[in-house]
Amino acid sequence: MKIIVVGAVAGGATSASQIRRTLPDADIVIYEKDRDMSFANCGLPYYLGKVFAERERLLQATPESFQQHKQITVNTDHEVTAIDTAGQFITVVNHTTGESFLDHYDALILSPGCRPLRMTATKHSDFVFPLRNLEDTDAIDQYIDTNDVQKALIIGAGYIGIEMVENFKCRGLDVTLTNRSEHIMTAMDQQFIPLLKNIITEQQVGLLLDDEVVALEGHDVIFKSGHRESFDIVIEAIGITPNTEFIAHSGIELNDKGYIKVNEYFETTADNVYALGDAIETFYRHTGTTTTVALAWGAHRGANLIAGNLSGHKERFKGLLATNIVRFFDHTIASVGISESELAAYDYEHISYEQKNHASYLPDARVTCISIYYRKDNRQLLRACIVGQEGVDKRIDIIAAAMGFGATVDDFKDIEIAYAPPYSSPKDIVNMIGYRA
Amino acid sequence: MKIIVVGAVAGGATSASQIRRTLPDADIVIYEKDRDMSFANCGLPYYLGKVFAERERLLQATPESFQQHKQITVNTDHEVTAIDTAGQFITVVNHTTGESFLDHYDALILSPGCRPLRMTATKHSDFVFPLRNLEDTDAIDQYIDTNDVQKALIIGAGYIGIEMVENFKCRGLDVTLTNRSEHIMTAMDQQFIPLLKNIITEQQVGLLLDDEVVALEGHDVIFKSGHRESFDIVIEAIGITPNTEFIAHSGIELNDKGYIKVNEYFETTADNVYALGDAIETFYRHTGTTTTVALAWGAHRGANLIAGNLSGHKERFKGLLATNIVRFFDHTIASVGISESELAAYDYEHISYEQKNHASYLPDARVTCISIYYRKDNRQLLRACIVGQEGVDKRIDIIAAAMGFGATVDDFKDIEIAYAPPYSSPKDIVNMIGYRA
Repeated sequence: MKIIVVGAVAGGATSASQIRRTLPDADIVIYEKDRDMSFANCGLPYYLGKVFAERERLLQATPESFQQHKQITVNTDHEVTAIDTAGQFITVVNHTTGESFLDHYDALILSPGCRPLRMTATKHSDFVFPLRNLEDTDAIDQYIDTNDVQKALIIGAGYIGIEMVENFKCRGLDVTLTNRSEHIMTAMDQQFIPLLKNIITEQQVGLLLDDEVVALEGHDVIFKSGHRESFDIVIEAIGITPNTEFIAHSGIELNDKGYIKVNEYFETTADNVYALGDAIETFYRHTGTTTTVALAWGAHRGANLIAGNLSGHKERFKGLLATNIVRFFDHTIASVGISESELAAYDYEHISYEQKNHASYLPDARVTCISIYYRKDNRQLLRACIVGQEGVDKRIDIIAAAMGFGATVDDFKDIEIAYAPPYSSPKDIVNMIGYRA
Repeated sequence: MKIIVVGAVAGGATSASQIRRTLPDADIVIYEKDRDMSFANCGLPYYLGKVFAERERLLQATPESFQQHKQITVNTDHEVTAIDTAGQFITVVNHTTGESFLDHYDALILSPGCRPLRMTATKHSDFVFPLRNLEDTDAIDQYIDTNDVQKALIIGAGYIGIEMVENFKCRGLDVTLTNRSEHIMTAMDQQFIPLLKNIITEQQVGLLLDDEVVALEGHDVIFKSGHRESFDIVIEAIGITPNTEFIAHSGIELNDKGYIKVNEYFETTADNVYALGDAIETFYRHTGTTTTVALAWGAHRGANLIAGNLSGHKERFKGLLATNIVRFFDHTIASVGISESELAAYDYEHISYEQKNHASYLPDARVTCISIYYRKDNRQLLRACIVGQEGVDKRIDIIAAAMGFGATVDDFKDIEIAYAPPYSSPKDIVNMIGYRA
């Protein structure tokens, strides 16, 4: 059996590894259009922040290690440009030689990921960088070191923008964050924007909201508002789009934003073609509605399920809750469930609550703010968002675990958290959700 | 409606408060045989460790504050000595005056708690203390300050023993821990005993296992092994027994260890008599088998449910998972589910697994050890035990949340934890439980 995997990062490399376990005799080949495979995507901002120095820790595997330990062939700098779903073969361009060739598959697994959106005003400038992969990371790192970079502008206040603000500060740079709207961190409830702005101010990070970069003149950045300021480096993190142009003409169905449609077995609309990772349209576990979630957990879960499917152990994917988290200096911001903007489709109740993360008589007790939304009709939890210092990750994971079982708001009264003074309260924040409702 | 509550600590005081909310017009009276009400039981070791200095933070309420803010009468130093369940009245002794009197109830709520077991060899000694309440705490604190205490012996390696070791070290004392068996921390899996012993040694705490105190001569403690050593203070924490002697003759059913039997509504076998807290026999949520759990979470949950029952909003208690946690220097030890010794009643599988608490490329990633047990027949999780440094509380709570929904070991693959490098891994430890099984 010949299995071809397109993409060698989280979804692709993990799929290939898992398939090697379930199908020891399969012929497995990966094509990756970029230079590196299996880099620790989520670790890139922290490497740039010099939180750790060893670049090799970002490279979890190499084509050599995959060949040697797993008998999986990884071809980097090889781009798949077309898929013939009837004949079951793909067209590949080897970017090193310029040659193209066909390769036949019995099963094809698509994990092409997403790429950063770029603005026309900035995309050809040599001091403006996206941050998607290790090549970008190396370029940014080298640029900072060789150009005496002091002053950085981050465009876009999503996960990557927020993480880059923290990490550039950590590296000692003077940082400004700009965002097109007032709503920084759209994964976070709008009610927490003032809290986030306070942290930004406390950390002496410049903030330009409701503004847009419209042009560059040398290192001068010109904003829509008329503001003009010089920066040594700019990181552009304004959003992502799926790398699915090569799929568009294959007949495999995409949604209107170019994400690959899959069913509960990660099967695309073409026979023997699967897809996973950031470039798929999937569904919320608790509501069943469609969504796209560019996060690592789902890619790893999908890899495991596809490997099971291929070996005849067919298991249904239960969907995603989009549980997400980001550290921002001494705070943590996390949410789970449908987005705040998707709530409009439901008749819901909202509860907001604050409590210390552990017994208040112990030192370092910190306020944790929680906001939850549940359906009025069946009281099912739709969304939760938490902002605080310690223990935010714990509470969002408890809620995610419960939501996976279809929890109603009332079920939270009965979640028996572990109580001792350094960890929680006998009625923990997650219990109070239920009591308040 | 006249409601009498026996006991004014976690279960009793919380019940009375909750009832005031559901029954604004009820006449509520609490009798407490000891000096203090509503003290923060779990905070006592940390106060003795001088982790915080403000003694008043241990007192969450006073009879005056309860009277003023909640119109609840709290009579401390008043011991209930008998219950007439037919006539619905109790006999009370006022320890201040020596007088006794009868009081009638429409509903009686029993939350008498437990007391420490004492050894004949030590119970009348002036330098040996149990630690149950604020009176004990004050006595210990004063004794240390006025007797130049340097060297402490802790008898018993349960929660209180373990917490007192940490806190006496924190206070600067020279500490030795002794336990009758090798099995320190019976709430913890025996496989982790070597790890715990290492911490004890690293912290320069003396350890005398498989030994027993048989006699005292002055400040010399004589052990069964023949070992003899002088200590300035001894804390005895060898176990607890319920304060239910006054109930024994009332006809209210107790189990063979003296714990009060209750049904799923916290109703005892007598009409209009409820019980909650450490002194009741309750049941495991996931297996339905009986157990006793002397922890705060259940007392608070019971208080809320009893208040609901009394006001006609009858809700069934779902049972306990006995989720428990203790900090021990830089480590955390936690477990959930039936005890290791109770596993013998099941045909089970055991999985043990180690993983870093977050992305290993970030500094301070620490190994977390997890041990789980599940039924072979229906794959339901029976028990989990976790030992590690950071994030143990998170994982035990995620598992407790899932077990509350009757989780099988396979369900853990689908718990969508929040992943970012400082918090977890894309396949977190809790997911690996499922993958390993």
